[in-house]
Amino acid sequence: MSDFSIGDRLRVTLFGQSHGPAVGCVIEGFPAGQKIDPDRVSAFMARRAPGRNAWSSPRQERDIPEIVSGLNADGLSCGAPIAALIRNTDVRSADYGDKRVPRPGHADFAAWAKYGPAWDRRGGGQFSARLTAPLCFAGALCLQFLETRGVRICAHIARIGNVSDAVPDPVSPALPLYPDGAFPVIDPDRGAAMQQEIEAARQRGDSVDGAVRCVVTGLPAGLGGPYFGGVEGRLAQALFGIPAVKGVSFGDTQPFGSENNDPFALENGSARPSANHAGGVLGGITTGMPLVFTVSLKPTPSIALAQRSVDLDAMEETVLSVRGRHDPCVVPRAVPVVEAAAAIFLSDLILQGA
Amino acid sequence: MSDFSIGDRLRVTLFGQSHGPAVGCVIEGFPAGQKIDPDRVSAFMARRAPGRNAWSSPRQERDIPEIVSGLNADGLSCGAPIAALIRNTDVRSADYGDKRVPRPGHADFAAWAKYGPAWDRRGGGQFSARLTAPLCFAGALCLQFLETRGVRICAHIARIGNVSDAVPDPVSPALPLYPDGAFPVIDPDRGAAMQQEIEAARQRGDSVDGAVRCVVTGLPAGLGGPYFGGVEGRLAQALFGIPAVKGVSFGDTQPFGSENNDPFALENGSARPSANHAGGVLGGITTGMPLVFTVSLKPTPSIALAQRSVDLDAMEETVLSVRGRHDPCVVPRAVPVVEAAAAIFLSDLILQGA
Amino acid sequence: MSDFSIGDRLRVTLFGQSHGPAVGCVIEGFPAGQKIDPDRVSAFMARRAPGRNAWSSPRQERDIPEIVSGLNADGLSCGAPIAALIRNTDVRSADYGDKRVPRPGHADFAAWAKYGPAWDRRGGGQFSARLTAPLCFAGALCLQFLETRGVRICAHIARIGNVSDAVPDPVSPALPLYPDGAFPVIDPDRGAAMQQEIEAARQRGDSVDGAVRCVVTGLPAGLGGPYFGGVEGRLAQALFGIPAVKGVSFGDTQPFGSENNDPFALENGSARPSANHAGGVLGGITTGMPLVFTVSLKPTPSIALAQRSVDLDAMEETVLSVRGRHDPCVVPRAVPVVEAAAAIFLSDLILQGA
Amino acid sequence: MSDFSIGDRLRVTLFGQSHGPAVGCVIEGFPAGQKIDPDRVSAFMARRAPGRNAWSSPRQERDIPEIVSGLNADGLSCGAPIAALIRNTDVRSADYGDKRVPRPGHADFAAWAKYGPAWDRRGGGQFSARLTAPLCFAGALCLQFLETRGVRICAHIARIGNVSDAVPDPVSPALPLYPDGAFPVIDPDRGAAMQQEIEAARQRGDSVDGAVRCVVTGLPAGLGGPYFGGVEGRLAQALFGIPAVKGVSFGDTQPFGSENNDPFALENGSARPSANHAGGVLGGITTGMPLVFTVSLKPTPSIALAQRSVDLDAMEETVLSVRGRHDPCVVPRAVPVVEAAAAIFLSDLILQGA
Repeated sequence: MSDFSIGDRLRVTLFGQSHGPAVGCVIEGFPAGQKIDPDRVSAFMARRAPGRNAWSSPRQERDIPEIVSGLNADGLSCGAPIAALIRNTDVRSADYGDKRVPRPGHADFAAWAKYGPAWDRRGGGQFSARLTAPLCFAGALCLQFLETRGVRICAHIARIGNVSDAVPDPVSPALPLYPDGAFPVIDPDRGAAMQQEIEAARQRGDSVDGAVRCVVTGLPAGLGGPYFGGVEGRLAQALFGIPAVKGVSFGDTQPFGSENNDPFALENGSARPSANHAGGVLGGITTGMPLVFTVSLKPTPSIALAQRSVDLDAMEETVLSVRGRHDPCVVPRAVPVVEAAAAIFLSDLILQGA
Repeated sequence: MSDFSIGDRLRVTLFGQSHGPAVGCVIEGFPAGQKIDPDRVSAFMARRAPGRNAWSSPRQERDIPEIVSGLNADGLSCGAPIAALIRNTDVRSADYGDKRVPRPGHADFAAWAKYGPAWDRRGGGQFSARLTAPLCFAGALCLQFLETRGVRICAHIARIGNVSDAVPDPVSPALPLYPDGAFPVIDPDRGAAMQQEIEAARQRGDSVDGAVRCVVTGLPAGLGGPYFGGVEGRLAQALFGIPAVKGVSFGDTQPFGSENNDPFALENGSARPSANHAGGVLGGITTGMPLVFTVSLKPTPSIALAQRSVDLDAMEETVLSVRGRHDPCVVPRAVPVVEAAAAIFLSDLILQGA
Repeated sequence: MSDFSIGDRLRVTLFGQSHGPAVGCVIEGFPAGQKIDPDRVSAFMARRAPGRNAWSSPRQERDIPEIVSGLNADGLSCGAPIAALIRNTDVRSADYGDKRVPRPGHADFAAWAKYGPAWDRRGGGQFSARLTAPLCFAGALCLQFLETRGVRICAHIARIGNVSDAVPDPVSPALPLYPDGAFPVIDPDRGAAMQQEIEAARQRGDSVDGAVRCVVTGLPAGLGGPYFGGVEGRLAQALFGIPAVKGVSFGDTQPFGSENNDPFALENGSARPSANHAGGVLGGITTGMPLVFTVSLKPTPSIALAQRSVDLDAMEETVLSVRGRHDPCVVPRAVPVVEAAAAIFLSDLILQGA
Repeated sequence: MSDFSIGDRLRVTLFGQSHGPAVGCVIEGFPAGQKIDPDRVSAFMARRAPGRNAWSSPRQERDIPEIVSGLNADGLSCGAPIAALIRNTDVRSADYGDKRVPRPGHADFAAWAKYGPAWDRRGGGQFSARLTAPLCFAGALCLQFLETRGVRICAHIARIGNVSDAVPDPVSPALPLYPDGAFPVIDPDRGAAMQQEIEAARQRGDSVDGAVRCVVTGLPAGLGGPYFGGVEGRLAQALFGIPAVKGVSFGDTQPFGSENNDPFALENGSARPSANHAGGVLGGITTGMPLVFTVSLKPTPSIALAQRSVDLDAMEETVLSVRGRHDPCVVPRAVPVVEAAAAIFLSDLILQGA
């Protein structure tokens, strides 16, 4: 019933609305004594921030988190809940009309059904992707914790529209998958084609879908559990929490068992799978192989083309058109968000020790 | 941390091992005063039971649940936890050798990593699909509860190997999707082709993958929530709890926003989406349209072909072959299990009232 | 919302009704590889069983749990949920009339308000103290687990009516507090006086209240947490789950800070409190000192004297009298139940590692 | 595992340290559309604030919460998490030495055991009663919600040292129990005697214990559940979360069943208990009678007298003396905190609808 909380032993709670004073988060259960590198936090958060480049949302906002709880005088985590606040500065409420007209593909219609007329529809309220900023803050801290455990996470754009990226080696992937600061793909040529897809959609006033693949190395075998404790289901719950995600899959399932079953072999005196179609999970439990999963995202519902809708106050059909620039593809910015959600989940999983 | 429990207000806890005395479940929070029709429970459970037909596992077992708690003298649910027991009768432990050799694609390797040598590997222990029997028992009760709320659930085989079934109408699907007792597909011709795929895999000693699609009608708008409270993520957690599930997706996402956004229209004086690419969920919240989702399953890891593995006691490589008949495809039997998992989740969602 | 479940990493779910086929429990998260001594389980459960002696309920029932899940072929816990069933055999439904007349002090009135007329009122249904039998089963297993961690638990009768037992040394208590099989008090003379109180109440057709004190040794410092994670609150939630408990307190608070604050001292090179008015918890966290708490229980509501009530069907006032022998004091039998609840909670706490 | 969170459907998460930049809270699940009266929030919070009067802590701090999330443009709750921040302004870190010397009766010793040396011991860090400020903020909002449901909560000082207040009528209490702004007792004469106890303790450099009793009217029958779902246990968990609470009890148990059992009678055509020794709960479920409970608090550990302790760095025994004024009794300020914790719990209980 906690829509904005995820995790058990390490628990992240988001708060904020698109056009409220601030967004932020509280992280409970973060281990005490961890040094936090604020520059790396900022660098990670900047990968998500809109307005940085040609393929992103026009909203300009410098996301500078203010940490109001959880650090001691030396800047180490002290065991208190870590709370951070990011002020909303680029809030243009005038873009939104007074009428209750649900935007197709957006949460508006469902939000009114759930919350009634008091829902703050400006910018999508609490449904806004703006809340992925504090999610990335929490993820950035978790990534630093995971690093102390030898765990690394790297996602890339697996697909934009019809253009797919290369596939990382599922057994021994070299992380990071792409150079720092680049359009996050393994194969730069395919990345260029993806950017053309995005630009074409923008020029049509349309948006385009895609997918993000994520690879995690360094996880020990034995984490997770059977049935509802499985890593796949629990991680999927975190990933579906990201706006626009409509599908999650693990590994690369082959059609026949004879190909899909990863044989076991000895390597340096230890038993391990010699392939990884399973994506690092068997029976819901980590195998010690890289965790590999793919998240598919719908095209962003914010498009410039006119769309049919209904005025819920007048109860009459109408046509909606959105003014101004739009964000034709959320997939590039979703890459760090997927990493953040995975980092939060995996930190929790490791801290649970099972 | 409760690997075998799912749900919040209505909570189902499974127990049992493949070769222990019994499997079963406890259902907490089932509404008091509900009449339970035992014949329909049995009929539902029979759809999952192996040994019934050509395309299923050779294990023969009549799953007769004994309800030991939760009903009053009149057979109505009384508010006490409903507990049921299904005895294991067809337990052939002799099929399993003494050595700790993990079967490729099975949970064995991961289970030893998690539980150590005390893990009861006979039949896969608590990882066995045998525990889907009590899951279906719980689902059968929830289906009867949902019926009182006007909610219906029907899944079908979406795909076996390369053969796909027809796609149900996502706006006004007619349930059930197929005749009672039939191979669960919409299009019988494609069903026949699927059965040929399964038979071909069996003859090769191999197994084949597939997918199950599920349609739910009658859900009100407004259930679920944004971010981690979303219907997609919470339902996905339940669905990934089903053995062999490796992917879950919602609706049928179109590549461009202009096609994917479902326009709103007036119908009989009410606003509603006039298409349903969203699969009945926007912003994590039900829209009142049919809930549509697809679950992909890996090929069953139990194959008759020899496979490479490692003897974990001797720490030497070895070759595993499995004797006897094998189950070349779990997908048909997964159809009621998907319905059961969905029924449990949706009952919980409705009882939460949000 | 799970009325019958307690715990997080180790989770116990009770089921059953007083007059249903069976009571039982499921224990999730019990560590794999633990040897279970069934004789000690039986001996522990026998301490709770009614009908054994002069001071207990006349209901005669041999509580022999059947373990249907969770052990491997060698009798070790295997990581699967441990499920056990205790058949109800001494079920005398004829003792209960057909009318809906709530018994004063019992749950009946509240149960009808919550569940409606389908509630199974025979013997109090799921409110029956009969469910403390599986609670003790779960506690017996947890006690064996705790023993491997050097933790011991022993409760005694602190008070019956006006007669109080001696107080154990809170710094270095010698466990057990009383000989095996004895009326569970430290001072046998006071125990004799307590039994006279109980016998006097019985002869009057009345019942008498009391309290149970519990001492736990061997807990490490550092378990629990501030605010809502405190050991006191979480343990209290488990203890109030025991029927008839109306109060829980920790340590023996002194009126003035100068007396109540336990000074710290060095002992064998380690710092520790040199007194233990805090009962082993400061700031919600264990100090390494014995955990000491007291549970007060109301007099059992089942008395032989006539009482005023209301016939809820006819909506008219009436007088209730109960036939047959009654149990004048639940406190002696609550002693192992308190130990069981504490054992379950503390096992969970230790497994959480924090 | 969420030390700073309480609740299920309505969930409150606290954050902050005594000497960090701010304390605050996030409230998830607060119903949308509720008008919040900020003046009444401030008035409620002022009752807890230190420095207001003779009997409270010398710390001077105006607790003005900044609400950064959860309200719409009209000041109504909008369904987003409500987040509020209270800046710490009166932070005198110089009062705390550099050495790791645990203060007797405080959480320090346990905190170092749990968190290690990174724990921010200034002012007690996250253990500080300072976090009851955001707890009262959350409680103030919940009180306004409860009012819309006809539920009222009022606590009073039941006891300071040896002086006890009058006892409210448990069947038909008139709320509030005392005039607005007064020392919170029913009987002003006993209140004067209590203040003398407090003043005497202050002059000795000592502190004194006490108790708070709370009465809740307007709750419907049927909330809560048997065993671990009981109102007593779940509310106790919230109450033990308040610093210094060492005991919680419900109703006023009488020694014999014949006196303690509340008879049922007809009143205006409805059945209800005609007495209320049960404190409004039977079988863990509300009876519709006033909920009555008592919380006992230890004397505040901060005293001016010298105390023995250990320097944990040098590992040598030492003597601690605290400079400046001290707070000789936390009980008066705990009165609104108890109301706040009860309001949060009861709002959650009502929203759960069971």
